[in-house]
Amino acid sequence: MAWNTNLRWRLPLTCLLLQVIMVILFGVFVRYDPDADAHWIEERLGRNISSDMDNEFYYRYPSFQDVHVMIFVGFGFLMTFLQRYGFSSVGFNFLLAAFGIQWALLMQGWLHSFHSGYIVLGVENLINADFCVGSVCVAFGAVLGKVSPVQLLIMTLFQVTLFSVNEFILLNLLEVKDAGGSMTIHTFGAYFGLTVTWILYRPNLYQSKERQSSVYHSDLFAMIGTLFLWMYWPSFNSAVSHHGDAQHRAAINTYCSLAACVLTSVALSSALHKKGKLDMVHIQNATLAGGVAVGTAAEMMLMPYGSLIVGFICGIISTLGFVYLTPFLESRLRIQDTCGIHNLHGMPGIIGGIVGAVTAASANTQQYGQKGLAHAFDIDATKTTWTASMQGSFQAAGLFVSLAMALVGGLIVGVILKLPFWGQPADENCFEDAIYWEIPEDQKSLVSRSEDPTLRPTEP
Amino acid sequence: MAWNTNLRWRLPLTCLLLQVIMVILFGVFVRYDPDADAHWIEERLGRNISSDMDNEFYYRYPSFQDVHVMIFVGFGFLMTFLQRYGFSSVGFNFLLAAFGIQWALLMQGWLHSFHSGYIVLGVENLINADFCVGSVCVAFGAVLGKVSPVQLLIMTLFQVTLFSVNEFILLNLLEVKDAGGSMTIHTFGAYFGLTVTWILYRPNLYQSKERQSSVYHSDLFAMIGTLFLWMYWPSFNSAVSHHGDAQHRAAINTYCSLAACVLTSVALSSALHKKGKLDMVHIQNATLAGGVAVGTAAEMMLMPYGSLIVGFICGIISTLGFVYLTPFLESRLRIQDTCGIHNLHGMPGIIGGIVGAVTAASANTQQYGQKGLAHAFDIDATKTTWTASMQGSFQAAGLFVSLAMALVGGLIVGVILKLPFWGQPADENCFEDAIYWEIPEDQKSLVSRSEDPTLRPTEP
Amino acid sequence: MAWNTNLRWRLPLTCLLLQVIMVILFGVFVRYDPDADAHWIEERLGRNISSDMDNEFYYRYPSFQDVHVMIFVGFGFLMTFLQRYGFSSVGFNFLLAAFGIQWALLMQGWLHSFHSGYIVLGVENLINADFCVGSVCVAFGAVLGKVSPVQLLIMTLFQVTLFSVNEFILLNLLEVKDAGGSMTIHTFGAYFGLTVTWILYRPNLYQSKERQSSVYHSDLFAMIGTLFLWMYWPSFNSAVSHHGDAQHRAAINTYCSLAACVLTSVALSSALHKKGKLDMVHIQNATLAGGVAVGTAAEMMLMPYGSLIVGFICGIISTLGFVYLTPFLESRLRIQDTCGIHNLHGMPGIIGGIVGAVTAASANTQQYGQKGLAHAFDIDATKTTWTASMQGSFQAAGLFVSLAMALVGGLIVGVILKLPFWGQPADENCFEDAIYWEIPEDQKSLVSRSEDPTLRPTEP
Repeated sequence: MAWNTNLRWRLPLTCLLLQVIMVILFGVFVRYDPDADAHWIEERLGRNISSDMDNEFYYRYPSFQDVHVMIFVGFGFLMTFLQRYGFSSVGFNFLLAAFGIQWALLMQGWLHSFHSGYIVLGVENLINADFCVGSVCVAFGAVLGKVSPVQLLIMTLFQVTLFSVNEFILLNLLEVKDAGGSMTIHTFGAYFGLTVTWILYRPNLYQSKERQSSVYHSDLFAMIGTLFLWMYWPSFNSAVSHHGDAQHRAAINTYCSLAACVLTSVALSSALHKKGKLDMVHIQNATLAGGVAVGTAAEMMLMPYGSLIVGFICGIISTLGFVYLTPFLESRLRIQDTCGIHNLHGMPGIIGGIVGAVTAASANTQQYGQKGLAHAFDIDATKTTWTASMQGSFQAAGLFVSLAMALVGGLIVGVILKLPFWGQPADENCFEDAIYWEIPEDQKSLVSRSEDPTLRPTEP
Repeated sequence: MAWNTNLRWRLPLTCLLLQVIMVILFGVFVRYDPDADAHWIEERLGRNISSDMDNEFYYRYPSFQDVHVMIFVGFGFLMTFLQRYGFSSVGFNFLLAAFGIQWALLMQGWLHSFHSGYIVLGVENLINADFCVGSVCVAFGAVLGKVSPVQLLIMTLFQVTLFSVNEFILLNLLEVKDAGGSMTIHTFGAYFGLTVTWILYRPNLYQSKERQSSVYHSDLFAMIGTLFLWMYWPSFNSAVSHHGDAQHRAAINTYCSLAACVLTSVALSSALHKKGKLDMVHIQNATLAGGVAVGTAAEMMLMPYGSLIVGFICGIISTLGFVYLTPFLESRLRIQDTCGIHNLHGMPGIIGGIVGAVTAASANTQQYGQKGLAHAFDIDATKTTWTASMQGSFQAAGLFVSLAMALVGGLIVGVILKLPFWGQPADENCFEDAIYWEIPEDQKSLVSRSEDPTLRPTEP
Repeated sequence: MAWNTNLRWRLPLTCLLLQVIMVILFGVFVRYDPDADAHWIEERLGRNISSDMDNEFYYRYPSFQDVHVMIFVGFGFLMTFLQRYGFSSVGFNFLLAAFGIQWALLMQGWLHSFHSGYIVLGVENLINADFCVGSVCVAFGAVLGKVSPVQLLIMTLFQVTLFSVNEFILLNLLEVKDAGGSMTIHTFGAYFGLTVTWILYRPNLYQSKERQSSVYHSDLFAMIGTLFLWMYWPSFNSAVSHHGDAQHRAAINTYCSLAACVLTSVALSSALHKKGKLDMVHIQNATLAGGVAVGTAAEMMLMPYGSLIVGFICGIISTLGFVYLTPFLESRLRIQDTCGIHNLHGMPGIIGGIVGAVTAASANTQQYGQKGLAHAFDIDATKTTWTASMQGSFQAAGLFVSLAMALVGGLIVGVILKLPFWGQPADENCFEDAIYWEIPEDQKSLVSRSEDPTLRPTEP
């Protein structure tokens, strides 16, 4: 069977169909949160709120914008490291995220913001939608270069759905804390993506091996993504924490963890090269692992030195993963992980879940104060039996649930994506923008010099 | 007559002269707003404001910074898509914006912030100055590659002046709402720029056709501009709205409209290519049309699904414009629109004005609440005759005024810019950095390989 | 003696050792500020603070994020202008800043936030740590391309220490105002770096001259750095000012100064080129001098026109410096200043110190109001003898102390860095990523075409 990568009808129809459904569902279900509704002036006077400044907007919006940059520029440019896949990296990430946030507003809205028959939308919903899409961007990293934009939209549709269900189980049923999403975003996203790419295994991928590396300037573009992720990660981990000290503390802890992670990533990168040279792949990715791994515990009393230790360890593990584990996964387990998300999101996500469970289990009134402990873990009068170790156990359970959902979900979605009519590229055309994009002359000539994938008959 | 593009005296003298005038006018007229003046501590105690946190700075500054990024990085990098005009795109945008904001602070200050003989400056003035310059950046897109920096400074001087007058007519005389500037910024900027480029029509522009396209990495640089515009657009449309729910709602609506716009832009881009391939031009530009088109209505009760519909339509119209209308404008109407601003700002701006008028005309107390309606449309005791349909009519009138100002203003400024002593490039030297910039060796060799525009005698 | 640039053990051991020390010191000394501690809910009720919104986090965090972007993306990308040193510019800046902020948190913490045996950490500490590292990034600009990452870490260790001591002398002993760090950050950082590079003088640096220039796209990458520095500089100069009017005013003044600076930089750049062409080096650097030079006075009643004048002058002086002074410093004073930091941070920093002293010396109650003056200069009951001229003298003294600390400190650190075992490159291998980085194929072939620095035996 010949692969047909012409998306002329498949992509437009998919996009338009999904967008029409979004319009209809938004029309039926979505309204404004009281803080964003024109009735607010009456509402707030009724609630005896004196100032417009007490609108939730001012508490959350700056963090939202930082998270927004991470999703679109951060993830988008991080994946431009491939020499001939920059358009697709940035462009498909843009597409899937733009669809994903709409679907996430609905899914998360139904599960968390449904009041009197309507989803009410405020700035916190926007942040959570971006978070949800973050897990899709993570999974995209595993299949980067090997799937069509139609496949990505289908994957986004399913992954956002599963993410929201998993998040509901964790946050509402198990009542775990996971403000920065070590479990819900990173662990779930990574193992979902890895399972999908395992199902989509391509035995002849070596045929496009030469395009699977970077060029000098593509590595610099990728550093734009890395740095915006790294700089704004404190906002990511603090964006939906409780106002006040929790948000403040989450930012500080993340800042510390990320700083430590840079030093150990550099150390390992150099130590593992026979001439002591640094590898851009490690600098672009492993330096971020510290942000992933404090995603659960950042808002807790992890302490600055605790954050440093987490970052310290994750920089090491993540870099080791790139050097030893990724090749092993590919050759032995048939898991082709383009961006090495297992090292950046998978392992650090699990560590983050464990760190969160341990930190929660060791919480006490001395550290938090009586009121502080109740506030931090939302212990109200109804939870008379709450104990820290119980919270720790639920946290650990949440980690396992996320892993299970990721593996089962990834399996199902992977099989769906394997269907032969989504426009996926042949093995020798992977990691190639020219399949899906009108390409400028300079790059076209490069193609024709070696091999123009659009001119050759292609079979699997 | 030979074109002389040597700017050695013209550019320095223009810059220094303008800047000296700015210093003098600022010295005579500009002081600090009470919120930025050292007397504030007394002022606020007098006004019984208890906390420094109630300073306007904290309400507006984060939005200001986002808008600032859009003007300088957003517009600047969006225009770097040309293969040999990156320095000029970023650099001239930087120059004209740096001058424009100063002149806008004065012009808008005289018209809106003039108290006891002085312009008083606060953070909202900075945002409005950035907005005003935004319309110049839009117009710059139409003439990109075909004008000298001296011409751009002259154009900025006049356009900022006209913008401020038009804005005064709309906001103060017609009392229309246009917080995100669909009319004042985008419609005005686009049709002003299109008229200027129509006057400056170059019949032999085909001579520099090969430089009017992109190269692979220039398209990636342009995506930096696109994404920062796209991500921060919710801040743009909400930056000067009323505090509280209006600002909150404007951000949500813009977020929704932009998300929908991405999907329909991608759909149309693929559908209009014979092999279903995506075109970077559409992804870079049409995806932003949704932000333009909710510029007027975003702060109103447009509803999230209303925003999705607007974005949906604009993605389609904008992409269609790039494919069919831009070539038509160039071949039939002699309008050479380098960046396709008619598709990104012109048509979506008009749609935005219409959407705003319709949304305003259908406003009612059920949607807004009694107090909410009065607050949203600034209806105080003096406006006893206010009706929604009247507001709608004034909104529509504002759109026509903006168009008229743009066309007449563009005509006059175009004729001024046609004068032969501003250092404009010859037709075969358009879209070429080497005319105005000292160029690194790698790019110089490219020039000499084909044609060094600085070495050849050039005539019109 | 042959230079050995293999860092396999030196870099990993340095990184790991420093990071372990950080973990231990953080464990012993660092706790959370009350605003970031879980006890805050009790604390704030005790202090009768009604709302979580009064947490310091919301006053400072948006400014912190802007400053953070300036340090990592701003400085990092500004230095990517070199054609073959982009990885090192961004990567080493990342490394030294990640270490530097941790060490700065400790040093500044001991000197400014030490309570009952602990350093208490809040968002203002994060900003100050970024500021401190900013001065290291400045100094990095002088030695860019000529030192190893191990040397940079050693330099960071010492410079952060000296910075903190100098800052303590200025702010706590001399009680000067320097919110944007004209003296503590820019003057100190620049003259420290220049002294270090003077000690590290390389007589045969001409051997790597061809790599000391830019290529077309590296100049565009550098513009990303320039623009993010330029746009966020108002946040930099206002980030740690008093809440309310001071922060507001600092942002406005910086905005004005930077705008003026762009026009005079462009004017001079064109006027000093024989064909009137602009030089990217000036646009990338001199346009920022206005931000440096209002670093001290921005929060004072400098007035908008005062800011314009400062920016006006600095654009001229900085551009003149690049054209005339940098070559002179290199040929006559043996100061090899890779990025021209003397023009961007040195001279403008001194101007900033002087402007600050003069502005402070001319402060009066008419300008500030009685309470405003006391608030602006922290005059409490204990300072009965405070006069404006005295403040001005202390400001001037602060400038001299900063210069003295920079020169003496730079001398000592320079000598330490001259020791031959830090892995520094030979003269012909300077400005070359391939020494310290695994390089993609496309750039490798460039190396082998001319000269592969890793293959040739290298001696000093």
